[in-house]
Amino acid sequence: MTVAPTRDHCIFCRIVAGTARSHPVWDDPDTLAFMDVAPLATGHVLVIPKPHWENVFETPAPALGAVMDTAKRVAHAIRATIAPPGLGVYQVNGRAAGQTVFHYHVHLIPRHGGVSLDLHGRRRADRDELDRVAERIRSGLDAPDG
Amino acid sequence: MTVAPTRDHCIFCRIVAGTARSHPVWDDPDTLAFMDVAPLATGHVLVIPKPHWENVFETPAPALGAVMDTAKRVAHAIRATIAPPGLGVYQVNGRAAGQTVFHYHVHLIPRHGGVSLDLHGRRRADRDELDRVAERIRSGLDAPDG
Repeated sequence: MTVAPTRDHCIFCRIVAGTARSHPVWDDPDTLAFMDVAPLATGHVLVIPKPHWENVFETPAPALGAVMDTAKRVAHAIRATIAPPGLGVYQVNGRAAGQTVFHYHVHLIPRHGGVSLDLHGRRRADRDELDRVAERIRSGLDAPDG
Repeated sequence: MTVAPTRDHCIFCRIVAGTARSHPVWDDPDTLAFMDVAPLATGHVLVIPKPHWENVFETPAPALGAVMDTAKRVAHAIRATIAPPGLGVYQVNGRAAGQTVFHYHVHLIPRHGGVSLDLHGRRRADRDELDRVAERIRSGLDAPDG
């Protein structure tokens, strides 16, 4: 990374800069992990790249990889200390998906069962319809080097 | 990767091997993306590493990075074709988190608002409590080269 993008009014950029309070779990040159201040469960941690990118579309692949490295490391630490029976790794893009801070971040959320955040649809889709949707999405793929 | 681990009874290993039906979106030497057969929304895609690893704890960092590369590529294609207002990137570990196929997979789910899958807690946590939890998790971190 060359010059890291930042946004003056971004709370996560301010946490990176040290001008806003946080409860850090991990800090390296590329990423930061800290406690979510409105946790869904004890041990709810956020992992971010230090530069400001809004979402998965903007964040360069190496930074996505660095965030996953940190997420995996912190996930092991959550398992070793909080020991929840399940762990969700969630990342949302856009207000319609629930994003409220527009600096890419991955949630690590201890899970103890229950039906919320259920990722399973109630019924199987029609196979022909799935073929049509797959073809539609494939038509939007960039070339392999894109 | 040397010899790729597989499991005879894993549906995703069978999809990789070509012995179970799928609706593919992307295929490269390390990863595969295909339609979820019980979609939460039109355009719900799963991204997996081809070798069998159960969860985020088992999957090696390079494979997590390869899955994220593919997830980002397919996310762009979903945005270009399905054009949902939001996109969730979700990955769960353990039955208590809703995992039902025990081969690491990342969900890409178009989101159109609504309250389900909300990642925000209803109240702010006590700051001192967050400090204690952060300290506890930090105590479980491996050494930097761990």
